[in-house]
Amino acid sequence: MAKDIEVGQHGEFFARDYHDPPPASLLGAEELTKFSFFRAIIAEFVATLLFLYVTVLTVIGYRSQIDPIVTTGQYGGVGILGIAWAFGGMIFILVYCTTGISGGHINPAVTFGMLLARKVSLVRAVFYMVAQCLGAICGCRLVKAFQEAYYVSYGGGANELADGYSIRTGLAAEIMGTFVLVNTVFSAMDPCQNARDSYVPVLAPLPLGFAVFMIHLATIPITGTGINPARSFGAAMIYNGDRAWHDHWIFWAGPFGGATIAALYHQFILGASAVKAPRSFRSISNI
Amino acid sequence: MAKDIEVGQHGEFFARDYHDPPPASLLGAEELTKFSFFRAIIAEFVATLLFLYVTVLTVIGYRSQIDPIVTTGQYGGVGILGIAWAFGGMIFILVYCTTGISGGHINPAVTFGMLLARKVSLVRAVFYMVAQCLGAICGCRLVKAFQEAYYVSYGGGANELADGYSIRTGLAAEIMGTFVLVNTVFSAMDPCQNARDSYVPVLAPLPLGFAVFMIHLATIPITGTGINPARSFGAAMIYNGDRAWHDHWIFWAGPFGGATIAALYHQFILGASAVKAPRSFRSISNI
Amino acid sequence: MAKDIEVGQHGEFFARDYHDPPPASLLGAEELTKFSFFRAIIAEFVATLLFLYVTVLTVIGYRSQIDPIVTTGQYGGVGILGIAWAFGGMIFILVYCTTGISGGHINPAVTFGMLLARKVSLVRAVFYMVAQCLGAICGCRLVKAFQEAYYVSYGGGANELADGYSIRTGLAAEIMGTFVLVNTVFSAMDPCQNARDSYVPVLAPLPLGFAVFMIHLATIPITGTGINPARSFGAAMIYNGDRAWHDHWIFWAGPFGGATIAALYHQFILGASAVKAPRSFRSISNI
Amino acid sequence: MAKDIEVGQHGEFFARDYHDPPPASLLGAEELTKFSFFRAIIAEFVATLLFLYVTVLTVIGYRSQIDPIVTTGQYGGVGILGIAWAFGGMIFILVYCTTGISGGHINPAVTFGMLLARKVSLVRAVFYMVAQCLGAICGCRLVKAFQEAYYVSYGGGANELADGYSIRTGLAAEIMGTFVLVNTVFSAMDPCQNARDSYVPVLAPLPLGFAVFMIHLATIPITGTGINPARSFGAAMIYNGDRAWHDHWIFWAGPFGGATIAALYHQFILGASAVKAPRSFRSISNI
Repeated sequence: MAKDIEVGQHGEFFARDYHDPPPASLLGAEELTKFSFFRAIIAEFVATLLFLYVTVLTVIGYRSQIDPIVTTGQYGGVGILGIAWAFGGMIFILVYCTTGISGGHINPAVTFGMLLARKVSLVRAVFYMVAQCLGAICGCRLVKAFQEAYYVSYGGGANELADGYSIRTGLAAEIMGTFVLVNTVFSAMDPCQNARDSYVPVLAPLPLGFAVFMIHLATIPITGTGINPARSFGAAMIYNGDRAWHDHWIFWAGPFGGATIAALYHQFILGASAVKAPRSFRSISNI
Repeated sequence: MAKDIEVGQHGEFFARDYHDPPPASLLGAEELTKFSFFRAIIAEFVATLLFLYVTVLTVIGYRSQIDPIVTTGQYGGVGILGIAWAFGGMIFILVYCTTGISGGHINPAVTFGMLLARKVSLVRAVFYMVAQCLGAICGCRLVKAFQEAYYVSYGGGANELADGYSIRTGLAAEIMGTFVLVNTVFSAMDPCQNARDSYVPVLAPLPLGFAVFMIHLATIPITGTGINPARSFGAAMIYNGDRAWHDHWIFWAGPFGGATIAALYHQFILGASAVKAPRSFRSISNI
Repeated sequence: MAKDIEVGQHGEFFARDYHDPPPASLLGAEELTKFSFFRAIIAEFVATLLFLYVTVLTVIGYRSQIDPIVTTGQYGGVGILGIAWAFGGMIFILVYCTTGISGGHINPAVTFGMLLARKVSLVRAVFYMVAQCLGAICGCRLVKAFQEAYYVSYGGGANELADGYSIRTGLAAEIMGTFVLVNTVFSAMDPCQNARDSYVPVLAPLPLGFAVFMIHLATIPITGTGINPARSFGAAMIYNGDRAWHDHWIFWAGPFGGATIAALYHQFILGASAVKAPRSFRSISNI
Repeated sequence: MAKDIEVGQHGEFFARDYHDPPPASLLGAEELTKFSFFRAIIAEFVATLLFLYVTVLTVIGYRSQIDPIVTTGQYGGVGILGIAWAFGGMIFILVYCTTGISGGHINPAVTFGMLLARKVSLVRAVFYMVAQCLGAICGCRLVKAFQEAYYVSYGGGANELADGYSIRTGLAAEIMGTFVLVNTVFSAMDPCQNARDSYVPVLAPLPLGFAVFMIHLATIPITGTGINPARSFGAAMIYNGDRAWHDHWIFWAGPFGGATIAALYHQFILGASAVKAPRSFRSISNI
């Protein structure tokens, strides 16, 4: 009986579909026939749309509030702290909402890490990334429609390398930031962790949201903080300024690099646990 | 045995009264004879009163602190970030407190979404909305009594369309914001989600509070953020300025529109899960 | 079997000692012979000491950072938002730490509410309040020792009625604020709530911390926010300025009044649930 | 059956390796042969590296943002509140990630407290502390590489005694701060606490993160807040300014002193509970 629970919860935090210990099939073309697959695609699209909508709107609104020409300075704006909260908090609630539908990636770098760890098939990963990028574009377009007066003049929430930082620094900052995020994602999915909090997998969205929050505090001054290629791509597409595209490759290479390192770290350093953990895990599951 | 638990927890997060899979009766006139019904009405009234009291008091206090005439500028005020926290944090604790009594709506838009999803009867929905509006009026009246000197001059915490934004933008911002909130409410009530965190339904108030927090960060510059018709109505009634009433319909049409879209999204896109989820759900419940 | 769990958890969130459905004995003199009683007294003393130490140190540090004479203005200080976090966050961690030892009151108003609800005996309530007041005095004394240069000139963290507010307003603000707090405490202890989160009673400290956080955002401009007679008394004792004592009675009458209203609200409005809830509760406990 | 769970969870929150009621062996040389031991060392190294990387980067970035020479003042920086969040939030997510691998110390003072409480062996404690210090050095070195232009001029995130505070005050502030932190760690590990939240041990990282957050709010103006010798040592090594080394002993003596007091407090005051608690604990574990 208890086994039913456990089986039902193996890895089920990140997606109800791939709860089996054996890795996801590499190609996964058969998923294309399931309705739950398309539901997941739609959920990723909507979540990334809402993510970009709320966060970029916060960024633009903040900039208009501190602009001495526009405002009398009476309001102080939400501050960089408020912007960091917007990104972290949205990840918290959106992962909470979509985790049971699509696994709650909302970020091509997370999807890429899951692909490397054989948690999602190639087909699913590609569809997720396309949905995330389209969602990000739509979210930014909405902000542009709402904030016609300010959107372009305030930079459109696009990621850019700040003055005084080299490309190497920007790339390294993106790698480190994404490593912190994807490392937290893998920790939340770890079989040991799942055993310990088998009754509260739903708690994981909170540390994920905080990870995003912390990385924004640290790297907003350097790159504006990407760590999510869909977020960077969507903002660049709608803003479409020269500067937005100039170093745009950083915001794909950095996050994918960070996700790769996190996957290797969990597979070969921490993941050696996979050999032993199941034993204690099994004893726990025989309730 | 385990079934007892599960039965006891079907949907019981949002109200102990309507934990049955069959939808709530449409009219629900029979509820008028139950004491628990009136207790729920009182709880909604008190919660909305406290919600408006704390949040509007924070808004007025903040404005007095940054007014160069009133203050020496030594204090900086809580900032817009503090105001957003006040709204989000109060929703967190009030939903936590009332969720077992009334379902913890505290917002006519949430009640409207629950009505569309057949989670509450029409009679209950109407009584809830009236109680919420009355509570909001009393909460704002208290703030006016406490802050006689500042209440009117600082706008009474009423929602207004900011200069430079069209009615269409304000309406769309309210629709989007309420969609984010009610989408989170539906996710927290989803049978799959409930199965996953059947032991921690009490966690749901936290993402709801964060949803409100995030929406305030994003849309305070546009409409002051309504997403709660009772909050907008109560503040407008007590402030009673021309401007407060001018675009007041936006703060009813927007939230109800957003709640409708969220209900449709969960019913027809994500809710197709309702056909399949119960099976895995049932296997889980047979502990 | 399951019954053992439930019995072990009846009300055990707020104190392992009074987990019985029958109310605590009124006098409770027999508690004086138990070691666990004195351990609880010590825990309350230490927790209140740490509470005042961290929060008043934050207040004084903030004021020194924004003083144009002392600082070059390079640092901005933690802001009123930071002060509100200090109070709310400390309550969160201290309730988390002491809840299994003493029930985690750290506040004479909470103890008073528990006494009215017959959750603690009179003897225990009196000893708790004395320990809390002594702890608060020691905590403030430590801050004074650490911040000799600034403590007196920056007001010593004492609660005072701000200019422009009447005594009635100050008293009402304290009553409302304490009602919000003690209402949350009672909700966390509610038998229904306990049934729902019987596995996660430990979650309750978070909403309590947020309640304190929110009340500070709202009423710092009016009274500096007491809602805790020990906090107000300790700060007044060490600061010992004229103004600190002038309206000091407000910070006892207000919190005790608010706690009384919260106790009555839960007993006679929401607590009518006590008649029915046990039935569903019992069915749940028969796992 | 239930016993299996309980056995599996005795103290397992802080490390899967020492879940036995009998204290850890004093020397523990035999641990050197286990792979899980070296995995734990690596996890501590990586976690401390990430901790220093994100937090010191936030400090340096904040200072560059408020420097009137560098910035036009348009951005306000994350503020001291943001810095306090960076430290607290990183502890939250890193403890969440490493708690199942190494126990999630990330702080020699915590390791020292665990050693005093016989929760870790001497060998493990020494290896942890070395790994933490090396990780801190590497984390700071990364920040220096990223922020060449600002690192040295903005103080390198090193802990220093602020002007106007005596050595005694700085030392006492470090002792008090570390006591608050290690006290929370011990509370999270308390057998009673574990019984109460035996299903949610994973919640403990949140109060730990908040403890770090609160202590930073209170003591940043005095010492910059150490409470973690590895953090102070790593920053001092890379910054290597005269001032960083001048009072450096405070940031070892203070935290170790605070951890000692916390260990004594839990052992001899609260820990007398160990004599009684097991009984109710056992009745709970016989599910």
